Amino acid sequence: MSLRPDVTQALAEWIVNCDLEAIPAEVQKEGVRTFVNWLGCAVGGARHETADHALAAVTRFAGEPTSTVLGRGERLDALHAALLNGITSHVLDYDDTHLKTIIHPAGPVASALLAVAETRPVSGRDFLNALIVGVEVECRIGNSVYPDHYDRGWHITGTAGVFGAAAAVGRLLGLTVQQMAWALGIAATQSSGLREMFGTMCKSLHPGRAAQNGALAAFLAEANFDSSERAIEAPRGFANVMSDKQDYNEILGGLGETWEAGLNSYKPFACGIVIHPTIDGCIQLREELGDDVAKIARVDLVAHPLVLELTGKTEPKTGLEGKFSVFHSAAAALLRGDGSPTAFTDEAVNAPELIAMRRKVEVVTDKACHEAAVTITVTLDDGRVIEKHVERAIGSRERPLSDEQLNAKFRGQAALVIGEAASDELLEQAWRLAEMTRVGDLAAASLPR
Amino acid sequence: MSLRPDVTQALAEWIVNCDLEAIPAEVQKEGVRTFVNWLGCAVGGARHETADHALAAVTRFAGEPTSTVLGRGERLDALHAALLNGITSHVLDYDDTHLKTIIHPAGPVASALLAVAETRPVSGRDFLNALIVGVEVECRIGNSVYPDHYDRGWHITGTAGVFGAAAAVGRLLGLTVQQMAWALGIAATQSSGLREMFGTMCKSLHPGRAAQNGALAAFLAEANFDSSERAIEAPRGFANVMSDKQDYNEILGGLGETWEAGLNSYKPFACGIVIHPTIDGCIQLREELGDDVAKIARVDLVAHPLVLELTGKTEPKTGLEGKFSVFHSAAAALLRGDGSPTAFTDEAVNAPELIAMRRKVEVVTDKACHEAAVTITVTLDDGRVIEKHVERAIGSRERPLSDEQLNAKFRGQAALVIGEAASDELLEQAWRLAEMTRVGDLAAASLPR
Repeated sequence: MSLRPDVTQALAEWIVNCDLEAIPAEVQKEGVRTFVNWLGCAVGGARHETADHALAAVTRFAGEPTSTVLGRGERLDALHAALLNGITSHVLDYDDTHLKTIIHPAGPVASALLAVAETRPVSGRDFLNALIVGVEVECRIGNSVYPDHYDRGWHITGTAGVFGAAAAVGRLLGLTVQQMAWALGIAATQSSGLREMFGTMCKSLHPGRAAQNGALAAFLAEANFDSSERAIEAPRGFANVMSDKQDYNEILGGLGETWEAGLNSYKPFACGIVIHPTIDGCIQLREELGDDVAKIARVDLVAHPLVLELTGKTEPKTGLEGKFSVFHSAAAALLRGDGSPTAFTDEAVNAPELIAMRRKVEVVTDKACHEAAVTITVTLDDGRVIEKHVERAIGSRERPLSDEQLNAKFRGQAALVIGEAASDELLEQAWRLAEMTRVGDLAAASLPR
Repeated sequence: MSLRPDVTQALAEWIVNCDLEAIPAEVQKEGVRTFVNWLGCAVGGARHETADHALAAVTRFAGEPTSTVLGRGERLDALHAALLNGITSHVLDYDDTHLKTIIHPAGPVASALLAVAETRPVSGRDFLNALIVGVEVECRIGNSVYPDHYDRGWHITGTAGVFGAAAAVGRLLGLTVQQMAWALGIAATQSSGLREMFGTMCKSLHPGRAAQNGALAAFLAEANFDSSERAIEAPRGFANVMSDKQDYNEILGGLGETWEAGLNSYKPFACGIVIHPTIDGCIQLREELGDDVAKIARVDLVAHPLVLELTGKTEPKTGLEGKFSVFHSAAAALLRGDGSPTAFTDEAVNAPELIAMRRKVEVVTDKACHEAAVTITVTLDDGRVIEKHVERAIGSRERPLSDEQLNAKFRGQAALVIGEAASDELLEQAWRLAEMTRVGDLAAASLPR
């Protein structure tokens, strides 16, 4: 199959012309699940200190207060609200994952969309349409450069996410094809976010800035602020500058026929996806061991090298660092059966019994081990040895969260921030996204009662 | 000499502790010249359509109107004013150049500083101090990765400029060393800007966003929004992710002893620095030829390959594209003796006599030819041949603009926008920068009368 060489232009045409009727029902369904999961995470992370610090810095610069910091109620201009909601939706590392690229798709796209939707009438159908198109764009652009781009050190949720936000907001604004190509260009030239930031507040700054900068790109293009029209594929464009791999077939091949947006997954645990098999397995072991958990003498993991590369912190000091410690994660799962946000608080990371347990964990890496798999061997102090192999963790495409599990995840975090009644009501509204006449109204329903 | 391995930390310490007394008088003098030149450019570019489009997009998102769009008078929050002034100061391609890296240093740094200085009392001495430190930081970081980083396709004024803005604004805010290291980290993770954007409005978006994003980094750090403290040198930090070359000696070697900020130069012509020798030589030829200019049959240039790589547009259609055409630039210099902003209007680029002349220009590249040199051979229709070799163009470190030439350049562009009286008064105030008690007052003096 021969594809068009003008990748940016062809993508812009598709973005502008892809209406909801052309999106298969199951992809639409996944789009609603993506939205529900994102909203729960944004509310769930609303009270995190990362959001407090960001608000303390930016509130003085915020413009007309049209848009809501979800779960809190501060009102900011749409770009700053996009920033804040992008931060909170990711800050617990509990959001969604496009498994082929480890992009967390909704943070950049939905955060931008809802903040802008509060400034104008946007129907649920138009919102869902823009959300799915935005997710599709960022995941396809991610596919075109993954894994080289990620291996080089780029946090792909930020670098690809900005394109998704630009495409999605560009649809809400009704950009022409020409303007949409510019929006992609303005997004490309703002693409940023370093993996060095993992374990700091800047990690969740990335989806926040991607949402804010992508929305800005769309508004600039709407005002005919021009840009390269070959920003993705040009010799000094995004793909060549930021990656050794450029596979444009991943962007244009099967566009509108096969759907990356239908492959989104939702984290059952509040940390990097590479530790999920370990947590899943350790929770299963805890259930099998019962009181014998107290007898654990050592824990041996055999995992893909990426597990140690991304989550190799042996002595985390903060909850945030705990998310980057397979050692702590295994300990919290074994001793508390917990992989939710409460497993990654400063308290949990510094609890003496968890520190003692994490020091019993040893990791051996094996390239032959699939990234989504792990083998856990627990040795008890009476000499017994129990082994658990996890091939695919819960939350993976093979074992996706059911709608009921998504509901439980939503309630489990949102109710802590806004109360049970508000959380239940918001959840119910979120599932009815496609029927709404004005999606911006949802933001008001996210506030604490 | 063995330098500290903790590059970011050492740099943060220096930024916080480098007071004006420690800066040599000649570097301070160059800092004032940098400021004067920047201010003239920001006012000179104020009415450019790029600024109109940007304002049309962002005004609705602007917060408390504390800060001024220079030369125009719209008031925006400090971050948006930094964006606009960063755009206008660069949009005519007439600003300053750190010749070792082709960074245009003042745009990101001074634009951020003045916008923030309008929000609080900042003395001229503190402003000058922060400006010099900011320029020093961005140029040293640029040196550490140049030329690989630039060759890869990064617009270094954007990618390095964001560090300069963060450092400079960080000084105004009185950040601690810890916060300054975070500010550099938050800057690093926003570093962006593709060379693919050259010839579009996004080129001047880069220094604008660098100013805005660097200032944001400083404000976030002030609010204790944390970041990596090794953002420059870490394996997945700025230098490793965005360049094949990492020479940290360029950052820490001789810090506070040798001064990149003392090496700034100021463009005599309103376009990319690589065409300056050509314009300089063509203007000299025009003066020598007199009426015989009408007899030019062909023009042959021998120049470094970078000249065609950066400015090889044979048939530019807009004034902006004309800046990236050595052919048009030579024609305007030969026929009009002009390398100022008026040589790069849509009118000039489409003038039939200039089109005819540019089509007579041929370029042969020669790697042995220095980037700052050119050999121009003019053949007249009577067969005469005149050759001109330019070794160093006016505006280079070897032939710097005098203060008087800087004044003429300032007046030549600012008077067109705000009138002669206002321009003269603003210029006089700008030279007295170091004596001012409240630098923010300068912004009001930049408005049209």
